[in-house]
Amino acid sequence: MSLSVYLSGEIHTDWRDQIITACADLDVVFDSPVTDHAASDDCGVAILGAEDNKFWHDNKGAKINAIRTRRGIENADVVVVRFGEKYRQWNAAFDAGYASALGKSIIVLSMPEHQHALKEVHAAALAAADEPKQVAEILRYVLTDKLP
Amino acid sequence: MSLSVYLSGEIHTDWRDQIITACADLDVVFDSPVTDHAASDDCGVAILGAEDNKFWHDNKGAKINAIRTRRGIENADVVVVRFGEKYRQWNAAFDAGYASALGKSIIVLSMPEHQHALKEVHAAALAAADEPKQVAEILRYVLTDKLP
Amino acid sequence: MSLSVYLSGEIHTDWRDQIITACADLDVVFDSPVTDHAASDDCGVAILGAEDNKFWHDNKGAKINAIRTRRGIENADVVVVRFGEKYRQWNAAFDAGYASALGKSIIVLSMPEHQHALKEVHAAALAAADEPKQVAEILRYVLTDKLP
Amino acid sequence: MSLSVYLSGEIHTDWRDQIITACADLDVVFDSPVTDHAASDDCGVAILGAEDNKFWHDNKGAKINAIRTRRGIENADVVVVRFGEKYRQWNAAFDAGYASALGKSIIVLSMPEHQHALKEVHAAALAAADEPKQVAEILRYVLTDKLP
Amino acid sequence: MSLSVYLSGEIHTDWRDQIITACADLDVVFDSPVTDHAASDDCGVAILGAEDNKFWHDNKGAKINAIRTRRGIENADVVVVRFGEKYRQWNAAFDAGYASALGKSIIVLSMPEHQHALKEVHAAALAAADEPKQVAEILRYVLTDKLP
Amino acid sequence: MSLSVYLSGEIHTDWRDQIITACADLDVVFDSPVTDHAASDDCGVAILGAEDNKFWHDNKGAKINAIRTRRGIENADVVVVRFGEKYRQWNAAFDAGYASALGKSIIVLSMPEHQHALKEVHAAALAAADEPKQVAEILRYVLTDKLP
Amino acid sequence: MSLSVYLSGEIHTDWRDQIITACADLDVVFDSPVTDHAASDDCGVAILGAEDNKFWHDNKGAKINAIRTRRGIENADVVVVRFGEKYRQWNAAFDAGYASALGKSIIVLSMPEHQHALKEVHAAALAAADEPKQVAEILRYVLTDKLP
Amino acid sequence: MSLSVYLSGEIHTDWRDQIITACADLDVVFDSPVTDHAASDDCGVAILGAEDNKFWHDNKGAKINAIRTRRGIENADVVVVRFGEKYRQWNAAFDAGYASALGKSIIVLSMPEHQHALKEVHAAALAAADEPKQVAEILRYVLTDKLP
Repeated sequence: MSLSVYLSGEIHTDWRDQIITACADLDVVFDSPVTDHAASDDCGVAILGAEDNKFWHDNKGAKINAIRTRRGIENADVVVVRFGEKYRQWNAAFDAGYASALGKSIIVLSMPEHQHALKEVHAAALAAADEPKQVAEILRYVLTDKLP
Repeated sequence: MSLSVYLSGEIHTDWRDQIITACADLDVVFDSPVTDHAASDDCGVAILGAEDNKFWHDNKGAKINAIRTRRGIENADVVVVRFGEKYRQWNAAFDAGYASALGKSIIVLSMPEHQHALKEVHAAALAAADEPKQVAEILRYVLTDKLP
Repeated sequence: MSLSVYLSGEIHTDWRDQIITACADLDVVFDSPVTDHAASDDCGVAILGAEDNKFWHDNKGAKINAIRTRRGIENADVVVVRFGEKYRQWNAAFDAGYASALGKSIIVLSMPEHQHALKEVHAAALAAADEPKQVAEILRYVLTDKLP
Repeated sequence: MSLSVYLSGEIHTDWRDQIITACADLDVVFDSPVTDHAASDDCGVAILGAEDNKFWHDNKGAKINAIRTRRGIENADVVVVRFGEKYRQWNAAFDAGYASALGKSIIVLSMPEHQHALKEVHAAALAAADEPKQVAEILRYVLTDKLP
Repeated sequence: MSLSVYLSGEIHTDWRDQIITACADLDVVFDSPVTDHAASDDCGVAILGAEDNKFWHDNKGAKINAIRTRRGIENADVVVVRFGEKYRQWNAAFDAGYASALGKSIIVLSMPEHQHALKEVHAAALAAADEPKQVAEILRYVLTDKLP
Repeated sequence: MSLSVYLSGEIHTDWRDQIITACADLDVVFDSPVTDHAASDDCGVAILGAEDNKFWHDNKGAKINAIRTRRGIENADVVVVRFGEKYRQWNAAFDAGYASALGKSIIVLSMPEHQHALKEVHAAALAAADEPKQVAEILRYVLTDKLP
Repeated sequence: MSLSVYLSGEIHTDWRDQIITACADLDVVFDSPVTDHAASDDCGVAILGAEDNKFWHDNKGAKINAIRTRRGIENADVVVVRFGEKYRQWNAAFDAGYASALGKSIIVLSMPEHQHALKEVHAAALAAADEPKQVAEILRYVLTDKLP
Repeated sequence: MSLSVYLSGEIHTDWRDQIITACADLDVVFDSPVTDHAASDDCGVAILGAEDNKFWHDNKGAKINAIRTRRGIENADVVVVRFGEKYRQWNAAFDAGYASALGKSIIVLSMPEHQHALKEVHAAALAAADEPKQVAEILRYVLTDKLP
C-alpha cells in the first residue's frame, strides 16, 4: 500500500520537512502548494502581466495557484491541513472544506490556542494533531500497523 | 425561477437581515446556520451530555451544527460567505471550500482590509461584494434581469 | 427548512414512535424500512413464489426490502441508525455504511454496552445518542435553534 | 487484467492468508485493515494522547483506522467481507454497506449459521462463500477463466 | 412515501395498464417511453425531415426518444423492465443496463422461457417477476408494508 | 410528466418566444439566461463597481451571469442551444459543452450554413433543428406522444 | 496516449482476435468477459455449490461474471459491443446501456439485418461498424491520426 | 508531481509545439485532438463508409473524433483552449464548457481582439494567456515553483 498525502496550509515553518523526513522510509508520495511566499503572491502578474488594482493582482495569482492546489487535493488520499501562528490562514480552512466535500481523509495540525476556533474543521477531520511527529506516526501506523 | 441561497459566516451583525429584507419580493429561499452563538457553542453537551475536555465539548457541538450546515450548502444554488471583523472565521472559509468543491456559485461578502487574505477564497467565487446591498442586487439581477 | 429523516435499524421497540411524536410540530418527513418483521422476512416468497432453500427465501425478501431501504437512505438528509438489544443487527450497520459513503448525516442511537463494538460506526456519525429523546432534540435544534 | 481486492472483517483467524496464498500466482493486489487487534484499539491514544473517557479513546482510534479502511475500499475492485464466530462485527457490516454504496463488487465470506442475519448483506453481494478457498476460486476464475 | 416508477420495454400488450390500475390507490408516479410504435419509429423524420438512408431515419428517431427515456430512468426510484414475446428488445436490455449503472432499483418482468437469456439482467435486478400483478404487489408492499 | 428546458444562446431574435408560445399548453418550465444584452454586459460593474480594464469589466459581468446560467443548465432536462447569425457565440458553444458533460439532452437550433462548423456540437446533441417550430414539436412529442 | 478497450458481446466468432491482431502495434489494452461459454454458464455452481433451480444456477454464475464485466466496463475508455447472429444477446445490450450511463465511448459492431432493432443502442454509440476491421481502424485513427 | 495537459482548439499554427518544446524538461504529459485537418474531417466516411448527406458525413467524423477528445479532456489535470484567427471555433468553446463542467483547470490562450467575445469562457478559466510562452510558464511554475 502507498499513500498520497497533500500538505496544505502554513508555509513559514519547517513542519512539512519534519513530516517528510520522518516518513522517509515509507511508501508515501507528498505534495504541497507552492511554498515560496513571494512567488505565490506574484505568479499571476509575473507571467500574465501587471495589474494596477491589487484585487486583480491577487486574483490572477490565486487562480494560477489553484491549478496546483486543486490537483493536489483531488489526487490525495490524505490531506494534512496546518494552521500556524501567523496570518488569517483562510486558504488553509478553505482547503479543508474543499477536501471534506470530496470525502478525503483530513488530519488537522494546529496549536492548542486555536482549538475552539477550529472546531468546525476538527469536526470534519479524522485526526487532530499538535505536532508534525504525530502526523508522521499516523501515516506510519496506517501504512505499517506499527505504533510509536 | 427561484433561488436557494445559503448565508454562511459571521453571526454578529445584521447582514443576513439586510439581504433578506432587500429580497423580500423575490422568489428566494434563504437558509443559514444556527445564528445563536451560545446555542451553537453548547448544543452538543446540552443534548448529548457534558464533557470535561473542551475539545470534545466543542467537537460534539460542531458535529451537530454540521447536520444543518452541510444540508444548507448542499441544497443551495448560491452560497454567500460573509467574513466580518471579529474572530478567526475558519468556519466561513471552510464552508467556502466545501461549497466550491460541490460546484456551488459562491458570493463572498467581506471587508476591504481582508482582500489579500481572502484571495484564494475570492478566486473560487463568482462575485466579491463589500456590502449586503450588493449581494441583494446580484440576486435580484439573477432572478429578474434588473440592474440597480 | 424541512428535514428528511430515515429511521434505520431495530424494529422491536417503539423508538421510532417516540421520535416522531416528539417532533410532531416540526417540519420533518420521516421514513423507515418495513417494520412488520414477518412481512419483511417473507415478502419475497409471498409475492414471487416459494423457495425450498432458505438462502433464496431470504434473498428474495431482502432484495425487495432493499427497494425501500435504498430509496429511504438516498432521499434522506439525516439517517438515524438504532442498535437495540436483540439480534445481530448487521442490516443496521450495513445501512450506516451505506449512508456514510453517500455523505449523509448520521445519528447513532445505541446502548452504552455496545459502545466499543460500535466504534467504527460512531466514527462515521455526527452524533451518538442513548435515548430517542436526544435524537428528537437534535432534530429540533437543527430546525429551530432551540435547545432543550 | 489485475484486480485490487480489499479483505474486510474478522481479524482472528487466518482466512486472509489462505486467500492470499491460494492466489499467489495471480495478478491480485490485496489490501486489508490493520489486523493487530491491540494496535487497532489503541492507535488513537497512543499517537494523539490519552483519553479518560472510553468513548473518545475508541473514537480517536476508529477515526485513524478509517484513513486506511476508506482508502482500501475506495481503491478496490472487489471487497471481500468476512463474518467470523466472535464479536458483533458491526464494522464488517458497515464496510459492506460502504462498499455497496460505492458500487463495489462484494463477496461475503460467512458461516452457515449467520445466513439469516446476513440476508441484507448477501442481497448486496455478488457472491456468498463459506470457505476462503471459494473466494480464491472466484478471483482465479475472474482473472483467468479457469474453474476449479 | 411516494415512488417514481419507470415502465420500460415491450409496448404491444397491456402490462403497463395492469400495473397502473392495480396501483391506482397508491402514491406512485408512473412514467414510460412513447408507446405508439409508429410514432416512435418515425418521430425523427416527421419533425426534422426525411432521410433516404434507413439508418439515419432510425437514428434521428431513436435520439428524440432518448430525451424521454433518459429522463424517465434518471428520475425513477424503480425501473420495471418488461421483456415480451416479440422482437429482439435490445432497447429493454439497454434500459436495464443504463438503470443499473445509475444504481436504480430494477424489477424484471419476463417470461419463463427467457430465463436463461436474461440471467445477466436478472443478476442486476432486485426482483424477477412473471406477472404484472407481482410488480404491483411489490410496489404495494414497498409503500404500505402489506403483502397480498 | 413535466420537462425543464433551458434555452441557451442567441438573444437577438424571438426564437425563445416562438418556442414558449408554441408550448403554451404543455407542462414545460422554461429558463434562459438574461436576454437584455446591455444589462448582461454591464451587470458586474453596475453592481460591484467600475473597472478601468475592459477585461475585468467583462469578467465581473460574466461571472454574475454564470450564477444564472449554471443553475439553469444544471436544473434542466433538456438544453436547447441556439446559434444565430451574428457574433461569435462562443458562450452558446460553451453552454453546449457544459450541458454535454453533465449528460443533459441537447437540442441544437442553427442555420444550414453553420452545419460544418457545428459538427462537434451536433455530435453531442440528440436533435439538430433549423426552426424553433421543430424544437416545440420535439418537446410536444416527448411529453404527449403526438407528432405534428 | 494509450486506450483501454473493453470487448463486450458475442463469444462464438473470432471478432475479438481480429481486432486485437489488427491493433498489435498500438498502445491498446484490451479486456473482455470470460469467453468460455460453458465456464461462464457454470461458474456459480462450480465454485459455490449446486442449485436445483435453474434460475439460481444462472443467477450465481451471472453475478460472478458481473465482477469481471463491471470492472471491465468501468475501467475502459472505449466499449465495443458486438451483436452476432445467434442468441438473444440481452447481455450485450445491457452492457451497452451500462457503458452509456457511465459516459463511455461506445462502438457497436453488428450486422446490417439488425440495424432497426439496434437503433436505440446505435443512438448511444459514437460509431456503428459492420466489420471488426473498421473497429481496429477507428482505434488506430484515434491513437495515431492515420486513416486506412 | 506530474501534470496531464490537454491542448484543445486551433490546429493551424504551431502553438502546441511551442508549449511542448518550452516544457521539454518538465514532467508533463501532453495530449491533443487529431490535428490533421483533412483526416479529422473525413475519418467517419473513410472508415465507416461514404454518406451522400454532408450532415451525416460530418456527424460520423465528429463522433469518432469525440472518442479521442472526451478521453483527452477527462484524463487531463489542465485543459488549454486555444482560440486562433480563423474559423468559428465552436469546438474549442465546446471543449472549454465540457472541461468546466468536469471541474478541470482551464487556461485560455487567445487574441486580444477576442476578449469580449470570450468573456464567458474566461470566467470559467484559471488563466487567460496571449502567448504560448505564458502557458508554458504557468505549467513550469505549477510544477517547480519557478517564475520566469
